[in-house]
Amino acid sequence: MTDSSHQQFMAVAIALSKEAIRSERGGPYGAVVVKEGEIIGQGMNEVTSINDPTAHAEMTAIRQACEQVGNWNLSGCELYTSCEPCPMCLGAIYWARLDKVYYGNTKEVAAQFGFNSQYFYDEVAKPREARQITMQPLMPEAAVTAFEEWKSLPDKQSY
Amino acid sequence: MTDSSHQQFMAVAIALSKEAIRSERGGPYGAVVVKEGEIIGQGMNEVTSINDPTAHAEMTAIRQACEQVGNWNLSGCELYTSCEPCPMCLGAIYWARLDKVYYGNTKEVAAQFGFNSQYFYDEVAKPREARQITMQPLMPEAAVTAFEEWKSLPDKQSY
Repeated sequence: MTDSSHQQFMAVAIALSKEAIRSERGGPYGAVVVKEGEIIGQGMNEVTSINDPTAHAEMTAIRQACEQVGNWNLSGCELYTSCEPCPMCLGAIYWARLDKVYYGNTKEVAAQFGFNSQYFYDEVAKPREARQITMQPLMPEAAVTAFEEWKSLPDKQSY
Repeated sequence: MTDSSHQQFMAVAIALSKEAIRSERGGPYGAVVVKEGEIIGQGMNEVTSINDPTAHAEMTAIRQACEQVGNWNLSGCELYTSCEPCPMCLGAIYWARLDKVYYGNTKEVAAQFGFNSQYFYDEVAKPREARQITMQPLMPEAAVTAFEEWKSLPDKQSY
């Protein structure tokens, strides 16, 4: 792709980030997923309007792109997002096997406007015992039987 | 809550993890969100059956619970998950402001069965320039204008 087409896709992501606040859908975030020069998914932050804490721009763009191609695997696709993703969205980017991420704002710039994803990065990086949200083990002997059952299956679909 | 009610909720999460593989919906993962002693959301892994890489058990349970209470904020609620969450789900747990997480399998046990969320933790913890999925800055001057517009709004809804 040419430089101008990369900029064109980022411009759409930025336009979505503004639409999110102008339409009172959520925070100033937009994203698009592009495959072979075409937008196949787009999203904007809608957390507060649809009461879904997972409705970040990148998540919605990824889900829409997967629906479009009929596959959870977005290898060969790229994401353009108006801001560096949070750990939730970055996790989704990895699960979806996206090729590359273009981002507008850094998380440091976002923090200057009160959007502090660094806190989330710090918490995810901590040992599970040290996090602010307590994580407590429970019934490991029962839980592992699901993995054992999975292991014994003849046809396992990986993802 | 009594020890037995904690175990009862985890038993439901584990049952969901088995239902996920028996019904061929996805990997062996289940989760429930509990508020004041009642299950208000549940989920199982459905990634491969509905082609949604974000359809992890915890994500679905959180989204369902939010729909149930009509709020993106799940303060006062707890999550029971058959396995320690991946960074995507952990991010969602933080965004949803859950009080506490009970988990069955550790990620180390999951890895013994081929489910390696440690890779995701390692990637999220890296500086953005060092990740296996390339992250490239693009048009920061244009992107920041959305944050500036947000800053100028009189009524901002935080999340």
